[in-house]
Amino acid sequence: MTNKAAVYRGDKTFTLEEKTIAPPGPGEVQIKVAYCGICGTDLHIYLGHMDKRVGFERTIGHEMSGTVAAIGEDVTGFRTGQPIVVRPLDHCGKCPACEAGHEHICHNLKFIGIDTEGAFQEYWNVPAHTLHALPDGLDLSHAALIEPLAVACHDVHRARVAPGEDVLVIGGGPIGLLVALVARQAGGKVVISEISENRLAYAEKLGFRTVNPKTDDPVAAVNQLTGKKGADVVFEVSGSQAGVDLMTAAAATRARIVMVAIHASKPSVDMFQFFWRELELFGARVYRPEDYDEAMRYLAEGVVDCTSFITDIQPLEDIQAAFEALIGNPSAIKSMIQIDGNAK
Amino acid sequence: MTNKAAVYRGDKTFTLEEKTIAPPGPGEVQIKVAYCGICGTDLHIYLGHMDKRVGFERTIGHEMSGTVAAIGEDVTGFRTGQPIVVRPLDHCGKCPACEAGHEHICHNLKFIGIDTEGAFQEYWNVPAHTLHALPDGLDLSHAALIEPLAVACHDVHRARVAPGEDVLVIGGGPIGLLVALVARQAGGKVVISEISENRLAYAEKLGFRTVNPKTDDPVAAVNQLTGKKGADVVFEVSGSQAGVDLMTAAAATRARIVMVAIHASKPSVDMFQFFWRELELFGARVYRPEDYDEAMRYLAEGVVDCTSFITDIQPLEDIQAAFEALIGNPSAIKSMIQIDGNAK
Repeated sequence: MTNKAAVYRGDKTFTLEEKTIAPPGPGEVQIKVAYCGICGTDLHIYLGHMDKRVGFERTIGHEMSGTVAAIGEDVTGFRTGQPIVVRPLDHCGKCPACEAGHEHICHNLKFIGIDTEGAFQEYWNVPAHTLHALPDGLDLSHAALIEPLAVACHDVHRARVAPGEDVLVIGGGPIGLLVALVARQAGGKVVISEISENRLAYAEKLGFRTVNPKTDDPVAAVNQLTGKKGADVVFEVSGSQAGVDLMTAAAATRARIVMVAIHASKPSVDMFQFFWRELELFGARVYRPEDYDEAMRYLAEGVVDCTSFITDIQPLEDIQAAFEALIGNPSAIKSMIQIDGNAK
Repeated sequence: MTNKAAVYRGDKTFTLEEKTIAPPGPGEVQIKVAYCGICGTDLHIYLGHMDKRVGFERTIGHEMSGTVAAIGEDVTGFRTGQPIVVRPLDHCGKCPACEAGHEHICHNLKFIGIDTEGAFQEYWNVPAHTLHALPDGLDLSHAALIEPLAVACHDVHRARVAPGEDVLVIGGGPIGLLVALVARQAGGKVVISEISENRLAYAEKLGFRTVNPKTDDPVAAVNQLTGKKGADVVFEVSGSQAGVDLMTAAAATRARIVMVAIHASKPSVDMFQFFWRELELFGARVYRPEDYDEAMRYLAEGVVDCTSFITDIQPLEDIQAAFEALIGNPSAIKSMIQIDGNAK
């Protein structure tokens, strides 16, 4: 059968094409994609930063929701029409990370939608082990937030946020905001450091205390909020040298710092402060199955105000315009593509 | 009474003086110092790197052993002549670190022998809470190794080294060697990276596998020793940019890295690798009371070959020459000053 798909052709260009799609193979499920959000990584791909890894023939997209369209051989536990989301990680099962139980950071990990075909298309074949069945009644546009929300759940687990702890989130983009929401759900007293006025306004609307390092000293602000103790937990989500400077400067003794951001260059880090205050740093990448379960529960419980978080929804036909708009739009939080016009 | 004491006068100079010493005050004990080792920090002081903190009237020294000479008011549990070591940390009891139970890294910590008078003198008044009673029969020169050995115990606790884990120690000086010995005692399979031929030879004599980054690729060496997995635990004890580069490059997925070294400048750190492999970093500074207890037990059990570890012992009169010699001596491990000529 044929299938309408967006294809990344390099140079900030998607083409809309009719692609042939095979039936699901053994161990696979074919998904009818409902919604797919635009991730920061998708923007990096669009901007050409990942051409070597992605190539010029790929359908990308992974922040999705959909329903089961067809079921391959040897797959049990799913039914046609069932609402699902995909945890887009395909691990090798043989490397030292997999053997140690860290399959989500497998040395040979294929990220589905980056390293293999993704969800900006009508129908999509994926390994059955990547599926999570959705609870009844969850809006499929909201369900497309489960993937980034699972990132936030994983980050907060890595930090072991405890009730009453002071939490600093450096960077108030979509992931930073979700981290802040999950950390607050875990009982943390959260302050967000962010330089965009639009994002600051949205963070405040969500009830967070904020600091803008462009106008105020964020270390002084954190000290003032914490009785000079500093933050017990810090999430570095900004990917900037200023964020890396702040993560140690605003940290309490024995603080846990979580490295969420992807630092392509090697920042200068205050290692003396790590020694002096016995700080701790934890890298955090993607998610584990239980993070998906938690994200689904949080979504059902209304932890995320999906209506305000999803700032726009556009049809697959307009994917090019959606990416173009997102690059220059300072007020967007999550832009989403609706693949199935009939999806709820 | 008067008391023979070495006084740091700045510009690589100690003078030997007769100082008046008061009887021990309330809550204090007066120690007759037996031995005091020369710490890397003492060398930094000698070289003038810490003049602002130390001043030019201080008797330094803290890696000591001795016996109780006199007991002040309100002190119980000690007897004259009792062999002891001092854990040279005086905390405030009121700051956020103390309140959180991290007294050893108190925000207002006085390090005795740096911030207050130290042990390169015959008699020494210290707070009674800093004393640890020694087991019977422990050689007092060996007991002067308890302080640096407690540092190593603390570092290994911070890393939670488990039996069978691959451990990389970057830097094979006195602290690196003690960390390696304690990590091996905890069941770790240890390899030491070091550039000094003398230190490499001593590490090999102690039964450690070694790699010299000047002649061999240490990442390849660690991968070869660990089946391409990398080190489960890394101790960065070198204080160098090369050490910081190696600590991430040689680390296994989810490896625990312990920052033992004091990095005065802010090194460039591969934060992408922290994210990608979910690495963990733990700062480690000085020790807690239980680290002293463990160090005493290890010393009694012969974990450290004290006879070869202590490379020379000189009388207090020769402290100036001992420091001068140590600066230019590539084969010394631990130089020690014997304060009490009759000490055993």
